[in-house]
Amino acid sequence: MIDNLMNRIDELNNPTVVGLDPRLDMIPEAIISKYYATFGHTPVAVAKAFFEFNVKLIDAIADLVPAIKPQIAMYEQYGAEGIKTYINTIDYAKKKGLIVIGDIKRSDIASTAEAYSRGHIGKIKIGEEQHTIYNSDFITLNPYLGGDSIEPYLEDCKAHDKGLFVLVKTSNKQGGQLQDLMVGENETLYERVGALVEEWGQDLRGKYGYSQVGAVVGATHPEQGSQLRKKLPHTFFLVPGYGAQGATAQDLRGCFDKEGRGAIVNSSRGIIAAYKKDIYSKFGADKFDEAARQAVMDMKKDLGEALA
Amino acid sequence: MIDNLMNRIDELNNPTVVGLDPRLDMIPEAIISKYYATFGHTPVAVAKAFFEFNVKLIDAIADLVPAIKPQIAMYEQYGAEGIKTYINTIDYAKKKGLIVIGDIKRSDIASTAEAYSRGHIGKIKIGEEQHTIYNSDFITLNPYLGGDSIEPYLEDCKAHDKGLFVLVKTSNKQGGQLQDLMVGENETLYERVGALVEEWGQDLRGKYGYSQVGAVVGATHPEQGSQLRKKLPHTFFLVPGYGAQGATAQDLRGCFDKEGRGAIVNSSRGIIAAYKKDIYSKFGADKFDEAARQAVMDMKKDLGEALA
Repeated sequence: MIDNLMNRIDELNNPTVVGLDPRLDMIPEAIISKYYATFGHTPVAVAKAFFEFNVKLIDAIADLVPAIKPQIAMYEQYGAEGIKTYINTIDYAKKKGLIVIGDIKRSDIASTAEAYSRGHIGKIKIGEEQHTIYNSDFITLNPYLGGDSIEPYLEDCKAHDKGLFVLVKTSNKQGGQLQDLMVGENETLYERVGALVEEWGQDLRGKYGYSQVGAVVGATHPEQGSQLRKKLPHTFFLVPGYGAQGATAQDLRGCFDKEGRGAIVNSSRGIIAAYKKDIYSKFGADKFDEAARQAVMDMKKDLGEALA
Repeated sequence: MIDNLMNRIDELNNPTVVGLDPRLDMIPEAIISKYYATFGHTPVAVAKAFFEFNVKLIDAIADLVPAIKPQIAMYEQYGAEGIKTYINTIDYAKKKGLIVIGDIKRSDIASTAEAYSRGHIGKIKIGEEQHTIYNSDFITLNPYLGGDSIEPYLEDCKAHDKGLFVLVKTSNKQGGQLQDLMVGENETLYERVGALVEEWGQDLRGKYGYSQVGAVVGATHPEQGSQLRKKLPHTFFLVPGYGAQGATAQDLRGCFDKEGRGAIVNSSRGIIAAYKKDIYSKFGADKFDEAARQAVMDMKKDLGEALA
């Protein structure tokens, strides 16, 4: 799957993943009011509005980007109806040829991790039948519980050609509170986690040398990104923080290798709510999808220039 | 809510929480075959069987234990139908007077944590309406992203009298791979996290001196549990690892304070699948709920003797 992702990035010449993280205040009035009229101010109305919003976004960007990354929290908060939309969004994106990174950041002991893994990237066995539930190609994970908590996912990566992105260095303000602690001479906690990620992926390397076990490395820490790129030659990076979180294209150059490979950059709000920004306001709420398409093209150009 | 939990533990004289973590192979044939017959080998059949299993367990133990802890992974793996059962289980348990600890171990940046928090322990606002989605009293969280990733939950703890258990020292074999790393002179990573948990809870203390921000401290590390108990005087412990994971009642004595307070001990498989163990086999699969009740009484006695 890491090879598929990298091939697709090459074909489109665009290392961008669009975060499909809808929020109620991003949904154009014309969409939400329709569902409110039928379902009232209920989770089902929101879930249906999110799906319509996502479908239009996916239609507008599917030929420009290799992947989308739905953030499950945005759906999970609305209960079972939200989860339905999360699943339907994944299925629709895959039908359109997109690779899907399920942003779930799960963490638990092995026997529980197995349940998450079977559900999100594996198969659920019921009687003699096998069911695919979430059908993500990649998921994000949290490493705090150590290697045995990651093991069940590695099995599904092997069995079903899936991939992982393990949190190494996150993009948030206090991400360093634990992650930057020194755990050895000249070694931070996030560097130790990075080394473990290399180890976890050592039997899962693809044709470009990168493994199916990637790392989340926030673009808001440019120097740390560059250093990690050198230290983790087989680890592909998922890079959040561009745009809304403040990082520029220059900031994340160091996350890429000499061939311009090795990372994919996420933007969520900056794309899906582009129509709310001054520079795209001419599109208006009705053409939020066209605004998103334009924002993707602008981001591609911006990244392309920085990586040239 | 921490006061409610501690009051209820005192009233029942039982610091036990039952982990409602159903697995397909625990469900008695008589229950599952009924749903297979109607719904086939599908997630909806499993979700409905899990709910019946949980209802019978809750009925059998609600007068003996203060709390249940459903592990969301067991439900989430079956998609929207599973989530429905997770929600229905919480609602049923609360109707029966139980306190509910949602074992979700979520972790994300603040803007995303807000969505998890509103969904699991807060309120979801849609138009002018407020919705309660999961209605847990407590949830578990992962600290790897640092303080700002916990902040949104603290707001909901204050606003809605809810509580948290943050992973400090987990019960799994490789839990120490990161958690035991030295991050300062005589300080491990898990001790640093413990100190942060004390800090996060400092404005949220109840009448017994314990705060609404508790810690997960695995019973499989008795000495570390005792040391943490001394270092974190305002932090209530959720203690997994008893029974199926190998810890004995003696092992977890140190997690309690001098008054015999300060911790609640989880058992999942050992209770809900008790009928599969030799000592409870006389109950048979039909009386799995009575076997669970007996296992709860035996655990209460075991803990009581160790804490005397």
